[in-house]
Amino acid sequence: MSPGQVRYVGVVGPGDGASADEVAAAAEVGRLLGEAGAVLVCGGLGGVMAAACEGAAVAGGTTVGLLPGGDRSAANPHVTVALPTGLGELRNGLLVRSCDVLIAVGGSWGTLSEVAMARRTGVPVVVLGGWQLADGGTPEPLGVEARSPQDAVERALDLGGR
Amino acid sequence: MSPGQVRYVGVVGPGDGASADEVAAAAEVGRLLGEAGAVLVCGGLGGVMAAACEGAAVAGGTTVGLLPGGDRSAANPHVTVALPTGLGELRNGLLVRSCDVLIAVGGSWGTLSEVAMARRTGVPVVVLGGWQLADGGTPEPLGVEARSPQDAVERALDLGGR
Amino acid sequence: MSPGQVRYVGVVGPGDGASADEVAAAAEVGRLLGEAGAVLVCGGLGGVMAAACEGAAVAGGTTVGLLPGGDRSAANPHVTVALPTGLGELRNGLLVRSCDVLIAVGGSWGTLSEVAMARRTGVPVVVLGGWQLADGGTPEPLGVEARSPQDAVERALDLGGR
Amino acid sequence: MSPGQVRYVGVVGPGDGASADEVAAAAEVGRLLGEAGAVLVCGGLGGVMAAACEGAAVAGGTTVGLLPGGDRSAANPHVTVALPTGLGELRNGLLVRSCDVLIAVGGSWGTLSEVAMARRTGVPVVVLGGWQLADGGTPEPLGVEARSPQDAVERALDLGGR
Repeated sequence: MSPGQVRYVGVVGPGDGASADEVAAAAEVGRLLGEAGAVLVCGGLGGVMAAACEGAAVAGGTTVGLLPGGDRSAANPHVTVALPTGLGELRNGLLVRSCDVLIAVGGSWGTLSEVAMARRTGVPVVVLGGWQLADGGTPEPLGVEARSPQDAVERALDLGGR
Repeated sequence: MSPGQVRYVGVVGPGDGASADEVAAAAEVGRLLGEAGAVLVCGGLGGVMAAACEGAAVAGGTTVGLLPGGDRSAANPHVTVALPTGLGELRNGLLVRSCDVLIAVGGSWGTLSEVAMARRTGVPVVVLGGWQLADGGTPEPLGVEARSPQDAVERALDLGGR
Repeated sequence: MSPGQVRYVGVVGPGDGASADEVAAAAEVGRLLGEAGAVLVCGGLGGVMAAACEGAAVAGGTTVGLLPGGDRSAANPHVTVALPTGLGELRNGLLVRSCDVLIAVGGSWGTLSEVAMARRTGVPVVVLGGWQLADGGTPEPLGVEARSPQDAVERALDLGGR
Repeated sequence: MSPGQVRYVGVVGPGDGASADEVAAAAEVGRLLGEAGAVLVCGGLGGVMAAACEGAAVAGGTTVGLLPGGDRSAANPHVTVALPTGLGELRNGLLVRSCDVLIAVGGSWGTLSEVAMARRTGVPVVVLGGWQLADGGTPEPLGVEARSPQDAVERALDLGGR
């Protein structure tokens, strides 16, 4: 992949509250992104974020952590570029803005804020599990539904192409 | 209401895409907030935002518009304090942060980003119509459900008390 | 002054470290802005900010406090619209962005960050005392130099006209 | 240098208006930072920023560009992690916050806004040339004065140690 084709893929999902399945899926998503030469951008903390970063780091990928607080040491140990923003949860919007595409693994209010912001601003979203949305009728996924981590990464790299 | 008891109530909802019912509900919400002496905070543009501001302004209330762009003149004419933030949609998070409680009238991706951010950060949310959320089961409202504009304002002033 | 002509004037200067002269000048600046029907925007805390707000409030003016933290109660008692931003010192940039013109009363690093940002982004700056800048030669004022609070307000309302 | 000892060093200075001397100094600063294993953080654009990034990249270092706009392609070609923030000049404050120490090469209003913010928030500043500040008396440098790019980098790595 030439430098101009590098994709920045946001991986979002629950932190401390992530389930074992979500953590495993995030690790696999991270590994595949690392192998594909994508830059993984996340919130830099635990749960889905840490698992995705570990997967990517093991595969030799670059991981960026946009931390909510002002202390770099809050980053999980697999973040290669840790940036304390001091923005609190406003960093969620910054994360969305800095990505070509988003993969959401599981659901939480923070995750939903990122997915909604992405949908609002035209950043493609791939979802792997997580919450659904309804407008008076049948609930629907929040973005393009993926069946597996591999499917999620393939769709994301396709949607995030520029 | 003494100065220390002033509540800052965010009113969020669709802009240009707002339905006639949503606009009417927002106007009534605004009027009741103005009469109650609350400060109405919104995104400063059209649709639900403009209707709420007009309702509040007619009732003599103060309305704050946190504009996404850098041009103050983009504010609807009923905003009494118009602040261009230049933050784009990141101003949604700023809006949430500056409010004691949020009333969501109708649904949109931008509205959802605000509601999710509020839920993530502990700002109470009252919903009047709009989208529902599901986690594999029956869809549920995004916050405390109100039956009418009056019910929404009463619940918001109660939840936003300090 | 018709609504479309309302000016938003930022008043910036030292907080706790403000001198008695700076506090007195800021109070006079605030009073004159309040009498002129301008909206006074500041950082919402003490020193120059509190003095300017008090002056404006006594004259019946509107004062906006963009607070660095997340707690509205940190605002000085003369702020009429207090918005906790949670942005820390990044709120200095937001303040600049939301103003038509800036009046700097006295000098401090925070004040300098605001004046420099204003100069960088084309927001006119009037200075009343404070620091000077040199580029290897004679120090010069950071903006249009005013001789008195009245001169500062007159120049600001003139420069901030749209 | 172990991962826990990586320093994040901001390099700030004029963009398009940088002089040939400033560009040369920035390139040398970047090269030395790259060789030292530091992460170079900058605004991602031209002039001092591009020169510093090129120096660092040639030395195999990591460079982060926090872009003011929303378009990643605005980054200079030597940025290894390019993050469009969409914050405009507010990204100056974000840059300061994400760094352990700042090196300012030359002077401009944007540079001054970053240096002042750093001084305000306790981020150490090393200056190589650039503007001076006066408070009614003799102008003084804006931070720790360096005599050469090598001196600047040595002082920065020393001051930015944690």
